[in-house]
Amino acid sequence: MKIKITGVGLYLPPKIETAEDIAPKIGKSSKWIINKCGVSERRISLIDVDKMGAIAGKEALGSNGAPDLIINASGVPKQTIPDTSTFYQKALGFEGIPSFSIHCTCLSFIVAFNTASSLITSKTYKRILIISSDRGTRGRNFNEPESASLLGDGAAAIVLEPSNIKENNRLLYYHMNTWPSGANLTEVRGGGTNKHPQDPNTTLSDNLFTMDGPSIYKIARKKVYKLMMQALKSTQLNKNDIDWVIPHQASGKAVSAYSSIGGFSEKKVCSTITKFGNCVAASLPMTLVMNIKNKNIKRGQNILLIGTGAGLSAACALINY
Amino acid sequence: MKIKITGVGLYLPPKIETAEDIAPKIGKSSKWIINKCGVSERRISLIDVDKMGAIAGKEALGSNGAPDLIINASGVPKQTIPDTSTFYQKALGFEGIPSFSIHCTCLSFIVAFNTASSLITSKTYKRILIISSDRGTRGRNFNEPESASLLGDGAAAIVLEPSNIKENNRLLYYHMNTWPSGANLTEVRGGGTNKHPQDPNTTLSDNLFTMDGPSIYKIARKKVYKLMMQALKSTQLNKNDIDWVIPHQASGKAVSAYSSIGGFSEKKVCSTITKFGNCVAASLPMTLVMNIKNKNIKRGQNILLIGTGAGLSAACALINY
Repeated sequence: MKIKITGVGLYLPPKIETAEDIAPKIGKSSKWIINKCGVSERRISLIDVDKMGAIAGKEALGSNGAPDLIINASGVPKQTIPDTSTFYQKALGFEGIPSFSIHCTCLSFIVAFNTASSLITSKTYKRILIISSDRGTRGRNFNEPESASLLGDGAAAIVLEPSNIKENNRLLYYHMNTWPSGANLTEVRGGGTNKHPQDPNTTLSDNLFTMDGPSIYKIARKKVYKLMMQALKSTQLNKNDIDWVIPHQASGKAVSAYSSIGGFSEKKVCSTITKFGNCVAASLPMTLVMNIKNKNIKRGQNILLIGTGAGLSAACALINY
Repeated sequence: MKIKITGVGLYLPPKIETAEDIAPKIGKSSKWIINKCGVSERRISLIDVDKMGAIAGKEALGSNGAPDLIINASGVPKQTIPDTSTFYQKALGFEGIPSFSIHCTCLSFIVAFNTASSLITSKTYKRILIISSDRGTRGRNFNEPESASLLGDGAAAIVLEPSNIKENNRLLYYHMNTWPSGANLTEVRGGGTNKHPQDPNTTLSDNLFTMDGPSIYKIARKKVYKLMMQALKSTQLNKNDIDWVIPHQASGKAVSAYSSIGGFSEKKVCSTITKFGNCVAASLPMTLVMNIKNKNIKRGQNILLIGTGAGLSAACALINY
């Protein structure tokens, strides 16, 4: 699909929480946190997801005015109703622009990228703003040290438009799968009809993030390897043709597996986990946008967006940037 | 876009709650409920949204096996993480099928219909299952009589595939808008980062449905009229060319406005509000599927799917069925 990223934006909350800060809350040492999760610090947002996303969105739009469509591609909403995209639009000062959410937890951005490319290809829209904004630190369970010391806050946004006839920029490949046998490995059981707040059986921990990291890693490692091989085979590219790998920042171990197991050179695998933690759906686009803004990623390069998410799901998108 | 509905399914919970049943809970008479909301009875589901949606989904798939993609197009999720589509897949007994949600409250089905059509047009997928399943009665606020007596439970599903070269079945027109100035007219403020359950300032009513019906009706009437006129103008069709109008079942008054103000013959405007209430995102596809199953809707007819949702949003899709 002939599409091009024409704008990028980022919001990194200024407040920093270090491994030392969080250590006493979870009864572990800062060394344990860094060894186990690979997160030495994270950002804590004092503003809500809509304001965070709107800051990133405004930067991505630049001076080119309103988009045709706003897609929210985050892990957790601002509230149940209305949709988070409405609140982005409000904070951006627009009225009358269509907006909705695409949700599949940590993979929301990859799925939204493909969906937006399809909406451009079908000529429904021409200029789409995708925003991922997550405030995972609001739902940490300090009784679960490993997941509590992983999560961080942040937002990123991109503008997607059709590439013109002379340009090579495109979505080369996209694939996604969901295996519900892993549905219970990552959960926030509250927030919907299942464990409704009105229900006397709903506990506080039902509303907090829970994750069985080791079990996910074991399954995900194989699924993701197969997904990468499929992507290369289908596009007739080899690992050397991939200029950058932008993984979902699930954990330090998960990110380094793209080089240690995946076989990509360490320099190509972009990591933001140490300084920013796992920012749920925002992690991947934050890593992408940071590497576009610091000019590591150059026009014409092949970028592999890839990751796993609650579900258990795995997805990848291979783009010519 | 050349697409065709190739399967439909429905789940109507067997338990009925009448206006008489609900009257004492909200301190109003059954006559008041029927006059004000147009709902004489609604279904109450004893199973959760995933099981409801899977029953409808299984019927829609028939004997043709697994789809390429499952899209959840509901108003309220089963839980925050993972996505509801994962739980549909689990209940349907599948593994490895991509699945995600499209969310824009009551308009989720119309937006998912257009998105699925784009994904088929871009050749990403060939056979897409869209499920809308809502259990609005879980979030009723009995201190708000008008909205509490509107909501009902139900689920519907369709299968969408490409139509072949000789077939006329297609999506003729689609349009959506969101006006965030109306964001606070319909809300469930809890369930996300805004009013997190861990936050001591979050109250029970923050997790319940609240709606300013009269204010929405006043704005929506004009927006929807303009949207209908645009749809007819763009497709060069007139009102007589539209065989059926399938509105979101917002309220008795909102549904009848399509004939009284919209100018469509009363016989063409499909209503299920009296017997099933406002089933959030499931209302519109339930009404569509019931009228396909009872053979009112015939192949080749022009069907206008239209409605408003929290946001405030308005959307329509005109299809040759």
